[in-house]
Amino acid sequence: MMEKKETVIIGAGLVGSLLSIYLSRRGHKVQLFERRPDMRKESMSAGRSINLALSDRGIKALEEVGIMDDIKPIAIPMHGRYIHNADGSTAFQPYGAEGQYINSVSRGELNKKLMSLAEQNGVTISFNHKCEHIDFAAQKITFQDTATHQQKEITYQLAFGSDGAYSAARLTHQLQHDRFQYQQYYIDFGYKELTIPPGSNNSFLLEKNALHIWPRGNYMLIALPNIDGSFTCTLFFPFDGEPSFSTLNTKEKVQDFFAATFADAAAVMPTLTEDFFSNPTSSLVTIRCYPWVRDDHFALIGDAAHGVVPFFGQGMNCGFEDCRILNGLIDEHQNNWVNILAAYQQQRKPDADAIAEMALNNFIEMRDKVADPKFLLQKKIEAAFSKKYPGKWIPAYTQVTFSPQIRYSDALKNSIKQEAIMQKIMASENIEQTWQSTAIEQMILDLIAPQ
Amino acid sequence: MMEKKETVIIGAGLVGSLLSIYLSRRGHKVQLFERRPDMRKESMSAGRSINLALSDRGIKALEEVGIMDDIKPIAIPMHGRYIHNADGSTAFQPYGAEGQYINSVSRGELNKKLMSLAEQNGVTISFNHKCEHIDFAAQKITFQDTATHQQKEITYQLAFGSDGAYSAARLTHQLQHDRFQYQQYYIDFGYKELTIPPGSNNSFLLEKNALHIWPRGNYMLIALPNIDGSFTCTLFFPFDGEPSFSTLNTKEKVQDFFAATFADAAAVMPTLTEDFFSNPTSSLVTIRCYPWVRDDHFALIGDAAHGVVPFFGQGMNCGFEDCRILNGLIDEHQNNWVNILAAYQQQRKPDADAIAEMALNNFIEMRDKVADPKFLLQKKIEAAFSKKYPGKWIPAYTQVTFSPQIRYSDALKNSIKQEAIMQKIMASENIEQTWQSTAIEQMILDLIAPQ
Repeated sequence: MMEKKETVIIGAGLVGSLLSIYLSRRGHKVQLFERRPDMRKESMSAGRSINLALSDRGIKALEEVGIMDDIKPIAIPMHGRYIHNADGSTAFQPYGAEGQYINSVSRGELNKKLMSLAEQNGVTISFNHKCEHIDFAAQKITFQDTATHQQKEITYQLAFGSDGAYSAARLTHQLQHDRFQYQQYYIDFGYKELTIPPGSNNSFLLEKNALHIWPRGNYMLIALPNIDGSFTCTLFFPFDGEPSFSTLNTKEKVQDFFAATFADAAAVMPTLTEDFFSNPTSSLVTIRCYPWVRDDHFALIGDAAHGVVPFFGQGMNCGFEDCRILNGLIDEHQNNWVNILAAYQQQRKPDADAIAEMALNNFIEMRDKVADPKFLLQKKIEAAFSKKYPGKWIPAYTQVTFSPQIRYSDALKNSIKQEAIMQKIMASENIEQTWQSTAIEQMILDLIAPQ
Repeated sequence: MMEKKETVIIGAGLVGSLLSIYLSRRGHKVQLFERRPDMRKESMSAGRSINLALSDRGIKALEEVGIMDDIKPIAIPMHGRYIHNADGSTAFQPYGAEGQYINSVSRGELNKKLMSLAEQNGVTISFNHKCEHIDFAAQKITFQDTATHQQKEITYQLAFGSDGAYSAARLTHQLQHDRFQYQQYYIDFGYKELTIPPGSNNSFLLEKNALHIWPRGNYMLIALPNIDGSFTCTLFFPFDGEPSFSTLNTKEKVQDFFAATFADAAAVMPTLTEDFFSNPTSSLVTIRCYPWVRDDHFALIGDAAHGVVPFFGQGMNCGFEDCRILNGLIDEHQNNWVNILAAYQQQRKPDADAIAEMALNNFIEMRDKVADPKFLLQKKIEAAFSKKYPGKWIPAYTQVTFSPQIRYSDALKNSIKQEAIMQKIMASENIEQTWQSTAIEQMILDLIAPQ
């Protein structure tokens, strides 16, 4: 029989809440501590939440713990990218094969569901508890009750830091760890949440089942559907330079810029200028660190271990996959938590590094390349070849998004090889005319062969 | 007339002490705060100090503020590397041209001198003062007196964090800075200080005017001379694996390993096994961060801004150069500290990144390549060509060590180009026989030409 552990999870966000369900189901006594108030009772602080794209890795983790049916009602399928070009034309680019889609979910709604499911599974959640310090030798965590400013010490047998990219658990771990590898890397772009309200009778003012992108070279606007008919929009934009968050400093400039640059979106954003100045401008960080664990009693998980930028839609999916992989390792290594945690970080670290890198690369694809005819042709050639030879070619996006059996680290390696092949194909003379020829098909087959 | 600033420098190490002299000479009122006790009064904690190699960049900074004559008496010229091969053979490799040398100095002795010179220049030094927090808005620093545990608030107009790679000033700056770029990267090797005592009448038991290296592929021992006839030795060694600090865990194993691996050194190290277990094993970290400054009132300098590994002998030299460059920028931008500090970080950041990279690369050169005949031939070809065409080729080591007029970032770029050329030269047939031929000389000239 497995030993039941007094388990503390720091951070009741998406990953912490899901992890608590996994561990509670195994019979551990789980206490969740969350810095913020209970979002199910308070009105949410708007403007800091990119809508999330729940895809196969995340779904697999929800299914494995038996709660996907609870989540489905708040998920809206998105079958592809709906591109809004600068010249006013639009185009639809499917994400994968027929029937493959990702899901728009509101971070807030999903988090509330997961918290309630956690409580239904016997987890206790203490809100307004800020992690101040962990004494790893004594296995004690000091929390401050942010309402009373009182400190409280909680003893644990097993503790997880799932408190996000700005993790307090990671900071106390780092400061007490010799030779801790750590990097925080910010891109020069920030993001701001905006909104397209529902039409009459909660109708959708843009195509519902798509992720909308307005690619503009150095920046972009995106929009994801919500169940009430609204769209949550996010502007990814430089902090400095022209144009940038520093130069769009009056309502008039914002209105003019949007009208000129994102005309069809601006037309359905009545609160644009109010939102622009009342919502915060947020940063985009990549976090890499190591080690993630201590002996048999502490681990970082989710963004706390590996913050990624949102451009591959994988941050939450990767964190959920952490939970699923950890759960599998608990089975594999039975009660031996030294081995469980060692295997967990050994397996997940290269995968987290890979998705972090791919997410950074994907920003360029989304804001720039999706509007480039040459890039679109390349994707068309890949898709056609993959359809004919599914065993020989899985497009990179499909590997990451729809293939949870492929590790992120393998997807990265494969995508580098594929990109090298496609560079050669795209350099062929008259590729625009010849791409459907057997000669091109044979050339791809030959280039794959050495693998 | 320049405004005189109430200046606080956090950290009275080598860079902080030198900086205090520079600023005090300009008329600023400078207070230095140091976490440790006064090393001039206490016996030093041994075993954590790599001897330093003072070279032209550091010397230029000492000369410019007029104190090089005070330092000369404690510096021992080292004209080259004295290689102790595994087979017992030895070889001498000059560092540069005739008359070019670097200087062995004891970190402790140099630091004491600089502190005393600072005091002679009107600087006050408060010891046992630990920086706990900086309130950048109020321009107040909280120190803890480590003797009394009392807190003290010091107001500043201008503050510098020169408190080393593990800088407390940097940490408080980082935690209060949005979008702070930060990386700490540890290599898998540590170091341990050991000693070769003087012979009779303070004689030197190894060649005095050289930096001794016992390169052994994956690890190495080095020894630098001290003015009392002793040598400070440093073992750079893996933390884990075989052999490593974890496996050399008994006096017998240490004695046997040294006798077999570093025979001639072991023969003159009577306190080897005692030193090995009483001296700490220290880590080797590279620190990269940005920004280094705040507005017109705060800057990081030296290792606090850019920790580098010691394998190019440039950590202190780079920090001293920071002081000299900053001093030049104070002249250039007069009283405008916003511009002075902005120019300082803009100029020094790429140079600090470059020397950090070159220092990491040089570890491989020192522990491995210096014993490789092919590498030695390459250096010989470069040296001969450089001697004949000094305007066309300055060896990378010479650029970094003996050419303070060349920026580190340019030295790195040049060295990458040179290495690509030398790879082609070394791949020529029978290069061992033909290297002095005019054909090879012409080949180098042709390869340089496109520059």
